[in-house]
Amino acid sequence: MNHVLKDSVMYSYKMAVLSKALWKSVERDWQAWIKPFDLNLNEHHILWIAYQSDGASISDIATHGVMHVSTAFNFSKKLESRGLLTFSKKEEDKRNTYICLTSAGKALFCETMSHFNEKTYNVYQGTLPIKELYGKFPEFSELISVLRHLYGNDFIDQFDHQLLNFTNELEETEGKLSLNPN
Amino acid sequence: MNHVLKDSVMYSYKMAVLSKALWKSVERDWQAWIKPFDLNLNEHHILWIAYQSDGASISDIATHGVMHVSTAFNFSKKLESRGLLTFSKKEEDKRNTYICLTSAGKALFCETMSHFNEKTYNVYQGTLPIKELYGKFPEFSELISVLRHLYGNDFIDQFDHQLLNFTNELEETEGKLSLNPN
Repeated sequence: MNHVLKDSVMYSYKMAVLSKALWKSVERDWQAWIKPFDLNLNEHHILWIAYQSDGASISDIATHGVMHVSTAFNFSKKLESRGLLTFSKKEEDKRNTYICLTSAGKALFCETMSHFNEKTYNVYQGTLPIKELYGKFPEFSELISVLRHLYGNDFIDQFDHQLLNFTNELEETEGKLSLNPN
Repeated sequence: MNHVLKDSVMYSYKMAVLSKALWKSVERDWQAWIKPFDLNLNEHHILWIAYQSDGASISDIATHGVMHVSTAFNFSKKLESRGLLTFSKKEEDKRNTYICLTSAGKALFCETMSHFNEKTYNVYQGTLPIKELYGKFPEFSELISVLRHLYGNDFIDQFDHQLLNFTNELEETEGKLSLNPN
């Protein structure tokens, strides 16, 4: 048997199991977190992306939420029917649909944030020993390098940019939004 | 806002999106690979685990396949009804159900292996630049460390052990099983 091919099967299988294990843990903890708010994971993710980039298009939501465009559209529709966001078109771009959170949508999203409890988030807990050892969160540079190949540099760069925006936003809303101190 | 808590939300969100992105890519490529064999991903994973550890229990399948016990059981039942595996009890352990691949099950699994094409497996392709740079596959040691926390040392150690077994098995079946050279 071709040696290179055997290595590629083994490596691909290893990555399949490890990435499944990681995602399933994240998914379980995320679901438990938002359970009290009658939101599923896609709906919460849409609120999150819309919160951190006001006026995101459905296509942006799909890209940054790693979901199909139809999934992004259908769950956005559900959130719209609950009065949590509104759809609009831009004068200069009639093809895309943009979404904006309503004040009820922003309030609900902030409420979910205030219920985040890092003690129930196992990926975070599992990283603490590394953080204590090196004094900072791991960068997962190999993983990021693979993801740059999979989704393009824009995906990672825009993700970092949005994360930074969101950090600033969280600082601005200090006082308005108090995260669960436990 | 509590600074530590803000960091924990941001880090957890980052890990959520990155792990989702990685898994969705793996899932898509895995599904495309096994599509011609009328198997879903759980079914193929069950065949894989059963192939590399003959006489695995349903509980082993669930653990190593990162699936619910009921998922492992239900899809194993489907594979049994297709004549691809058999259920049995052990004399010394009547509580657990063990599964063994039939020769048809082994043949089908080997056929799927012979159709693996690393050019369609994007996670593998995305790793090649790292492999060329460092001369070996990345070890993802930070990721493995987090997974050891999430699933226990046994999960990782047994996974490595099974992977080694499987490599040896692939070497033994050299000649019998010819992977797609393209």
